[in-house]
Order: sequence, then C-alpha cells, then structure tokens
Amino acid sequence: MLKVRAMVERILVINPNSNREVTAAIDRNLESLRFADGPEICCWTLEDTPLGIETARHIDQVVEPLCDLIAREDNHTSAFVIACFGDPGLASAREATSKPVIGIGEAGIAVALNRGERYGILTNLPEDINPGLRQIRALGLGARLAGIEAAGIAVVDLGDETRARAGLLSAAWRLKEKGAEAVVLGCAGMVPYGPDLETQTGLKVIDPVHAAAGVAIVFVRAAA
Amino acid sequence: MLKVRAMVERILVINPNSNREVTAAIDRNLESLRFADGPEICCWTLEDTPLGIETARHIDQVVEPLCDLIAREDNHTSAFVIACFGDPGLASAREATSKPVIGIGEAGIAVALNRGERYGILTNLPEDINPGLRQIRALGLGARLAGIEAAGIAVVDLGDETRARAGLLSAAWRLKEKGAEAVVLGCAGMVPYGPDLETQTGLKVIDPVHAAAGVAIVFVRAAA
Amino acid sequence: MLKVRAMVERILVINPNSNREVTAAIDRNLESLRFADGPEICCWTLEDTPLGIETARHIDQVVEPLCDLIAREDNHTSAFVIACFGDPGLASAREATSKPVIGIGEAGIAVALNRGERYGILTNLPEDINPGLRQIRALGLGARLAGIEAAGIAVVDLGDETRARAGLLSAAWRLKEKGAEAVVLGCAGMVPYGPDLETQTGLKVIDPVHAAAGVAIVFVRAAA
Amino acid sequence: MLKVRAMVERILVINPNSNREVTAAIDRNLESLRFADGPEICCWTLEDTPLGIETARHIDQVVEPLCDLIAREDNHTSAFVIACFGDPGLASAREATSKPVIGIGEAGIAVALNRGERYGILTNLPEDINPGLRQIRALGLGARLAGIEAAGIAVVDLGDETRARAGLLSAAWRLKEKGAEAVVLGCAGMVPYGPDLETQTGLKVIDPVHAAAGVAIVFVRAAA
Amino acid sequence: MLKVRAMVERILVINPNSNREVTAAIDRNLESLRFADGPEICCWTLEDTPLGIETARHIDQVVEPLCDLIAREDNHTSAFVIACFGDPGLASAREATSKPVIGIGEAGIAVALNRGERYGILTNLPEDINPGLRQIRALGLGARLAGIEAAGIAVVDLGDETRARAGLLSAAWRLKEKGAEAVVLGCAGMVPYGPDLETQTGLKVIDPVHAAAGVAIVFVRAAA
Amino acid sequence: MLKVRAMVERILVINPNSNREVTAAIDRNLESLRFADGPEICCWTLEDTPLGIETARHIDQVVEPLCDLIAREDNHTSAFVIACFGDPGLASAREATSKPVIGIGEAGIAVALNRGERYGILTNLPEDINPGLRQIRALGLGARLAGIEAAGIAVVDLGDETRARAGLLSAAWRLKEKGAEAVVLGCAGMVPYGPDLETQTGLKVIDPVHAAAGVAIVFVRAAA
Repeated sequence: MLKVRAMVERILVINPNSNREVTAAIDRNLESLRFADGPEICCWTLEDTPLGIETARHIDQVVEPLCDLIAREDNHTSAFVIACFGDPGLASAREATSKPVIGIGEAGIAVALNRGERYGILTNLPEDINPGLRQIRALGLGARLAGIEAAGIAVVDLGDETRARAGLLSAAWRLKEKGAEAVVLGCAGMVPYGPDLETQTGLKVIDPVHAAAGVAIVFVRAAA
Repeated sequence: MLKVRAMVERILVINPNSNREVTAAIDRNLESLRFADGPEICCWTLEDTPLGIETARHIDQVVEPLCDLIAREDNHTSAFVIACFGDPGLASAREATSKPVIGIGEAGIAVALNRGERYGILTNLPEDINPGLRQIRALGLGARLAGIEAAGIAVVDLGDETRARAGLLSAAWRLKEKGAEAVVLGCAGMVPYGPDLETQTGLKVIDPVHAAAGVAIVFVRAAA
Repeated sequence: MLKVRAMVERILVINPNSNREVTAAIDRNLESLRFADGPEICCWTLEDTPLGIETARHIDQVVEPLCDLIAREDNHTSAFVIACFGDPGLASAREATSKPVIGIGEAGIAVALNRGERYGILTNLPEDINPGLRQIRALGLGARLAGIEAAGIAVVDLGDETRARAGLLSAAWRLKEKGAEAVVLGCAGMVPYGPDLETQTGLKVIDPVHAAAGVAIVFVRAAA
Repeated sequence: MLKVRAMVERILVINPNSNREVTAAIDRNLESLRFADGPEICCWTLEDTPLGIETARHIDQVVEPLCDLIAREDNHTSAFVIACFGDPGLASAREATSKPVIGIGEAGIAVALNRGERYGILTNLPEDINPGLRQIRALGLGARLAGIEAAGIAVVDLGDETRARAGLLSAAWRLKEKGAEAVVLGCAGMVPYGPDLETQTGLKVIDPVHAAAGVAIVFVRAAA
Repeated sequence: MLKVRAMVERILVINPNSNREVTAAIDRNLESLRFADGPEICCWTLEDTPLGIETARHIDQVVEPLCDLIAREDNHTSAFVIACFGDPGLASAREATSKPVIGIGEAGIAVALNRGERYGILTNLPEDINPGLRQIRALGLGARLAGIEAAGIAVVDLGDETRARAGLLSAAWRLKEKGAEAVVLGCAGMVPYGPDLETQTGLKVIDPVHAAAGVAIVFVRAAA
Repeated sequence: MLKVRAMVERILVINPNSNREVTAAIDRNLESLRFADGPEICCWTLEDTPLGIETARHIDQVVEPLCDLIAREDNHTSAFVIACFGDPGLASAREATSKPVIGIGEAGIAVALNRGERYGILTNLPEDINPGLRQIRALGLGARLAGIEAAGIAVVDLGDETRARAGLLSAAWRLKEKGAEAVVLGCAGMVPYGPDLETQTGLKVIDPVHAAAGVAIVFVRAAA
C-alpha cells in the first residue's frame, strides 16, 4: 500500500514446463487483463524442464531454474506468477524475491471461492487426485471442495480435441453432481476447453492463470 | 469464459453503510485499478442504512435495499462488490443477479492467502471477534488464520487519527507475534492507515475492497 | 441459574413464514411439551413474510419483522424459538433481547447428536444442500454429519402426501445408507411425516421445533 | 415420534460415582424440570464405584455396573442420563437399551451451543484438559470451543467453598478472556457454584445434568 | 532417551479377547520382529474375556483385567501392546504403568500414513463403521482417511476362508476405488489374509499388531 | 506381507545435508536399532548439498541428488529414510523406488502420537513455525498438536552447548505448558540434547530419525 508507483510494472508469468505452445495459449488467454495503462504481462517458458509437469519429481525439478529466473528478473518485475497448478517452488520462490509470487493453484482456488458455494477441480489422471488433496490440505482450502475429478487425459494428450472435450465434460458433470458450482481447471492445457465446459454444464469455469494474473494486478496496484 | 465481450463493463462497488466519506475513501483507493481501457469502477453509497455496520442487525437490515439496488442496476453492471467486511446479503445478492457478486470479507481473505503463509484480521472491537470467527468458519477459510485482533476503536471513531493509528498498530503487532504474515483490514474505514501499518510492522496489509475489485476484474474479463 | 423464578414463563415460538397452517402444525406438535405447571408455549405466525422460506433472500427478509416482534414481546417472554431451519436472524435476534433465542437448525442438530452417532438432514430440494452445508460449517457441527439429502419436494408441495411421503422416505433411506442413525427434519412442514419415517426406516427422526422447545425449557428453568 | 404415549414416563439419572451427596445435589437441581404431568425424574447413585470419577480407569470401571443397572431398569424407564461429564459407558449403555441414553458431557456442550457463540469448559485439574480435548474431538464438537480451564480443585475438594469459589471464578474469567460466552460446568460437584459464577462474570453457565435432563424430556415426549 | 539399558527388555502383547488361536496367529506374525539381541516379544491371552471384541461393551469389559495384568507385569515389562483395534483401555492402561502402552488401532494407522498418501480400514461389519469413525476422530487421524469398508464377515466367521477372502477382497477394492493406497486390517483375525490382499490389489496392507510391535521396539530402544 | 524374505535387508538413512558430523550423530543414535540378525542400517551423507537444510529452497535443492541416490541404491536397499524433518523430496522419492521411503517428519510425529495425548515440536527459529504448520497441515496431523516452539538457535549454532541446551529447555517447557506430553525434536542436530530434555521436563522426547528407522524395520520385516 505504499503510495509511490514503482517504475517497473511488469507481471512475469512463468510456464515451468518447456512447452512453448502452452505458454502461447496462456499468453493469449491473458490478453483480456492487459490494459493500456496497466501492468505489462509477460509469459515466459522455463528452459530445460519437462514438456509437462506430471510427477512430483517434475515439480521438484523445476524449482532451481525457476528460482534462478526469478532472481535474475527481480529488478525488472513487479510480481511473478508460477503457471503450474501444483504450485512448484512457491515457498522457495518467495525466498528468492520480496515481490509477490502467486501460484495458480492457490490463486485459482482462492478466486473460485468467490464464484460458487463449493468448487471442484478438473485434473488429468486419477493418480493426480491424492497429490491434489495433499496440496489442498497444505493450502488449508478443503472446506468447500466438492471433489477432484479426472478427465482421464494425460497432459500430453490434451491436444486430442475430441477425447479431451469428452473427458473434461464428463468429469465436469460429475463435479456438478457432487455439488460444485465453480470448477477450476487443474492444468493450463485445459484452458481452451473452458468456455465450452461453462456453456454446456452451467458451471462457472475458472482459468487459474487468469485468476492468478488478476491477483498479481491487485498486489502490483496495491503498491501503486 | 464466453468469448464475446459484454457491452457494459462496469463494476459497481456498493458501500452498504450510508457514510459518504467512507465511500469517497473507497473510491480514491480504487483509482489504481481503473484502467483506460478497463472496466469502469463506480462506488455508490446505499441510502437509508446505518452510518456504520456494527451489529448483526445492521448486516441484516441492509440486505433488502442492497438487493433492490443490485436488481435495478443489473442490466448496466458486469460485477458487484459489497464493500462491508461482514459480507452482508452475499447469498441473497447472488440470487438477485447472475452477475458475479463479491464480498470483501471473502475476497479479502482469499487474496491475502496469496501474500502470506498465515493471515490475521484487524477488527474494531473485541465483540467483533466471535462473529468474525463464525464468518470465517462459514467461509471455510480458518485453517491459515493466525488470529483476529481488535484495535479497540469503534467504526465511528476511526477518524480520530491518533487513537486509531495507535490501536491498529498495537493490534497488528499482536497479529505478527501470533505468526501472521499478511493482515486484512476488517473495516473499510481502516484503509487510510494501511500503508503506515505496512511500513512499520513489515506485515503485508490487504485492503479488502481493493482485493475484491481485483477479483471482480478477473470475472468481468474472464467473460471478455 | 439465578434462583428467583421469573414472573413470566412463556416460550414464544415464532414461525417466520406467514403460513398459518404450518404454525398450527407446529403448535400441535408442541402439545407434548406443555406441562400443567410448566412454561407456556405460544406459537405465532410472523406477518407479511413469504409463505415459505425458500431462498437466502427470504431468510434475510424476515429478520426485521422478527426482531421487531421479539423486542415488543421481550417483557412477557422467557425464551424465543425461531421456527425455521435456516435460523434466520438468529444473531440479530440475540442482540434484540437478553432472553435465550433458539434456532431450530442449531438446536435440532445439537439435540440429534444425543440420539445417534452420525446424523443426516432431510431437505426439500437439491439446491438447499450447499446453503445447508454452509450453515453447518458456520455452526461448527459438521464432524458427525452423514449427509444432507433432498426429498425433491418444494416447501409448498409438502401437502401432497403421496409425493412427499415417497420423496422423504427415499431420501431417508439414502441417509441411512450413508451411515446416519438420526435424521433431522430440515423443514417444519415435514413434521407430519416424521413418525412414519421413523417406523419404516428405523432411523431416529428429530423434529427440530420440538427439540428447540425442549432446549428453551432447559434455559427457562435454569433461570428458575 | 410414535403417537402412543408410553405407560412409563420416567427419566433415570444415574450418578456413576458412589457419592450420595453429589446425587442429592443433582436431584435438587433437577427440581425445576419436574412437572406435575411431566416425566418422573429419579436420581440414583451407582453402588460400589469410586467416590469421584477422576481417572480414565474410574471411567472404565463404572461401565459394567452402569450397564447392568440400565438393563435391569429398562422396562420401567423412558430415558437414561449418565451424570458424569466424561460420559462413561455411553456407547455400551446404548447397546444395553433401546431407550435414549444421554451423557451429560455431550448434552451439556450441545445445549451450551444454543446459548453462546463459543463455549468454554470448567474442569477440576490441569491434567483433565487433554482427556477433555480428546472427548471433544470424539464428539466432533471442537469448532466452537474457546478453551478448557482448570479450577485447580480436585473433585473431593469442591466442598471447600472458599477455595472452590475462587478457583472456579478465576478459571471462568480466563475462559471469558478467551472469548467464551457460555461455560459448561465440567463436574456435577460444581453445580452449587453456578449461579454465583454467572452473576459475577456475565457468562451463561450451563449445568450439564440439567441440560441432559431437558434433552431426555425432548426424547421422552417426542415418543409421546 | 535415557542412556542406561534396562535390565528387562520385554514387549508384552496382550490379546484382550480370550481366543487363544488369535493369540497364536499374532505370535507367529511377530516372529519377524524377534531379533537375537532384541527385546523379547511375548503374546498373552487375557483370561475370562469375550472370544471376540465385537461391541462397545466388550471393549469396556476387558479394561479391568487388562489393567490388572499390566500392573502385575509392570516390573518385568518394557512396553505393552494392546492387540485389539478398538484400543480398549488405552488411557486407563497408561495410568497403570509408566511404560509405553501402544494400541494397535492408533499405531496401525500412524504407521500406515508412512506407506501411502491416504489409508483405508477394513472392518468386519457395517455396524463397526460409525464406532470406527468416532475412534479416528478421537485419535485426530481422519484427514487422510479414504474410507472404512466392511467385509461383511463377523469376527467369529473369519475362519471361513472362502467367505472371508472374498469379503475382504471386495472391501479392499472398494477402498482402492476411494483412493486408499494403504489399508489397515481392522481386526487381528484378518492377518492371515493380508499377503493375498496385498498381492491381488496392489494396496499396501498393514498388520496393525506388527506395526504396534515395531513402535514398541522404538520406545524400548529409545530408552536403551 | 509377502512371505519370501528379501535377500537384501538394508535400511539406508540419508542425511540430505552435507554435514558429516550430523550423519555421524544420527548413526550413533541408531545403534540401538541394529540387531545381530536384523536389517543393516546405513547412514549416508548426501554430497554437494547445504550444510544445513534451513530454507524452502534448501529443501527443494536436495531432491534431485536424493532421488538419484535412491535410484542408484534401489537394488541393494529394502527401505529408505530421509533424515531431515522437512521431509524433502518425499513424494518424488516414492516415485523413484517401490521400496518404502520414510520421512522423519511424518514418522516422528506419527510415532509420537503413541507416546502422549498431545505433541509439540521443537524447532530452531521462529521463522520455521509457519513452514512447520504447513507441513503438518499437508500431513493431516494437526489435531493433536499442542504447538511448535522455537529454541532460538540456528542449525549451525546447535553445537554451542550452553546456548542450545538453554534454548531447547526453555522451548520444551513452553510446550509442556501448552499441554504437550510428547515432544518431537524438529532437527537431527538436537538429538544429543534429547535425554537431558526428557529428564528435566518429564516430557517424552522423540528422536524422529530413530522413530523413522523403527518404522522402516516394520516395513522391511512386514515383507519378510
């Protein structure tokens, strides 16, 4: 809440996997939060990391390059967004900079609470559910969780539109039956399917990268 | 996430108490979230309501005029913010419109989670603590609460700068001792003291109206 | 626990909806708690309120007339019961009087805990479930909840005996399968179906108005 | 909710310790719930049990004679109250009879929730606190617990009026500072001090035997 | 952590039911934890107790002889294990000796947490589920519980291999579907079926007596 | 529970920091769990890692070499123990091997539950408390936590015996006042002070490496 506007006003969104197509999709989806006189929003791909963050080890592996990047860019950046739902390296990154660092898992759920009484999470595979539950326990955000449902589509197969659409839609309906009113996309690769899911199910679909960027704007402009 | 930008892009921030000075302070504090090509952010005062929302009955009393206002303005509004920390009428308001309705209590805490491991709440009087705890239980956001501390200053006395500053600072330090890293201002009237609290204690101070307006932008621009 | 018996010993049960038939049914069902030398138990209908409390806004709308009534009757009343499962205006009513005010939602669940290891709630419609869960979180009484099941019958249709009986019975069986041992009727209009549900399912069926009146007697006679 | 009034309408309150003075005090305190045409309320002392239930083993030791008594009296009894705050043998007793069995720990807390936003428990000695917390976890009633505070007076010393009064008052004030609005007496021997505690601290003091008897009346008359 | 090795190093595993075959099976299964220079592990049958601990009353009934035995054997014993999943008399036993007393329910779950993200419990009959949930609440170990599933086989029928195998396997699969990764055998009589369950389902199967004996070794040798 | 004894029976305890003195102290403390015919227990130091694991980033940095080591040693090892209280890389390590991997944080707390009604954690510095609370939330083990207290001694200063002893003792007393009965040493470097803390405070002091090794023996010998 300091009253001197920072010289730099840049939000750096880091895609921790090395898939540039995912970064490009994220980038397009953030267009709606780029304002003429607002903070610059840059989307970068982390180099030399897995193409998809699919395991606990992937999550751990990206932390070093992620923190290195954050340290290097600290001077020119107002806030960082880690664009992977597992929030890899969030605590470490917060040690690497005094600027706000926002994880899309934490921000996506936090924002979703404002759009529905209970929320669900769409995830890729059934084996993502237990790690997701652990993450939610760690975040302390489980009280309004309706459930986590898997689409049955690995991250790398999200490009198969027919299968992905069907798997996500089916999982979204199951979340609705469980009482979810808002649904958080548990993977950046699901973003293109969001509008369709929302139209067909009536659920409020939350893109967590978009939500995190909004939270970043709050923090950047709180310091304005 | 519908891909046709709405004609209207207005966020209507409603101060449920009838104190126009509070509305003016809120309005000034949201200046940093008004962008040249962003959603219009209007701050209105609810008529014929108490000067300060200090009791459960005050909270209940403002719901009818609040919902009436929301229904009247529904056509010209993209999202509503209820600018009272007790989130008066939030559920009722969500019945009155299909547009996003954001309560600053829920949004302020949700956003604060992204800025610190545990959060505290600054409240006016000791008798606000139990209702605050009930609200947090209802929100399901208690797992990372470090505490609620009262400044010992009634809403109407927040204009007494010396007393208010001292009371808030003392309460903020107590929250820090309890382990809070972020602190949410539990009353719109505390906003002017935020930067000073942040500087002196090192705590991240969250203005919940500002946070809620940011969440509103996310929802408005998700529909963009 | 003051040792001077109050002059007045009247429990005022207020039906916040304006449906006099519901009030009459409540009244009959409380006959078993009227003792020759016990507190008088009166059942009143709140004027100018909805015929059924079915939405959040209904809940909010009845608070003002409810509190006004309580304030007017304070001198002649020993304890108040708010006979709507959503506990409308409970906090506000407790500000309006120093006498005990008992909500049938809170009291019904609290008493049910004494009659079964886990409890379930019968509600009218599926859309009542999320608000019910929020209420239970706010009450802090979720740890032994087996579930909330909807009978699929709107409040206004509870008079249709065949449909109501079938819907309630089916929902009660689902609660039993989930492990409920006691079931709280989530709406005063369900009271006539209680004995039948109990006989057929073996569940302990709790009429929350009756439970609340019993709790009121405890408080009235504690002060005796 | 069966509509045929039982022939027998007797509530049997069993004091599991063998101290007849405690039984007599309980008996006097239930006078206010004896109605001319209400259920008979009998208070019995369990034979050959410890003079005070002060340890886990005491709790376990009284179960057999307690259940034997309940089985013997089942035919002539409508509901049983186990008048020891640790709820000894509650699950076993519920196997021994199909009649309602009410523990004063569970009932005392459940009723107290209706009289204050948060509750505290007065206990005898500091070593009672951890067992008390375990009991409250088992009951699932911890969400609104403000604290358990020990008076520093063993059960057998509760007759020392000066010490007991001072110890209880001090503990009650500590509970009030922690935010309790209602306080449950954690031992039947504290009942005589209740009114004084209430007058001096402004806390609502709940006698759990009285509360349990009220709950028993609800169940007996629900079956009426 | 005292650095003088005790003269006696004996772990006494007490089977609280009087079924010597169960004791023998427990004994065989602990062979793998008997080391040449390790603590002696003895398995004893409690006399004059039920053949199976199947009710709450059974649990309460064994406490006195259990504590008497513990007191008698205290001088010659380094740690006690109570080999019944309901942890009968655990608190009382801890009053009867200063040596470690380990309940297989508490230890079995505590150890299982180290072998899987979420755990399930196999129990005998559906009516064991609610008491099991209460036990887990009391233990404070519910956060990672995937579920409790009943095999549909009474304790006394566990010797019927065909039925037992089928019932346990079916229940284990249901736990796996609910997300359990480790499964705790909720009854000593299930131990012989453990390896088969593990092979067929891929779940990690935890024998709680074996786990408790391991915990006992930790405590005995911490004092070494 | 497979009934063929593995050829290899080795428990590999990995100290993720590169401080060989800490490894040596761990090694000595595990002597009491080395049995003539029991599993071999080896203690290794991870190369090229920080001297003390003091930050989130340290935790993340050790994961790659830790998992690499585990993968390399998988064939010759029956179970792995990660000897750092923050449980670095636990999930990743479990992907790298099908053998049991035990974190001393999780195991230390799980075992401590068997030795006291509530437990406390001794940590080095106040800034360790919030990360510790997050870890405990993630583990789902918070229900019986009495508190975390910091000794005010950085890891590197634990060799300063006078200061360390005083700081740890003072923190242990604070945990006892909060109701802890068992205390888990939150850092391997505190192990030498354990016996003294236990003697002076009467608290049960749990060395988490020792506890984890015991749990490892359970798993190794369950497969025996």
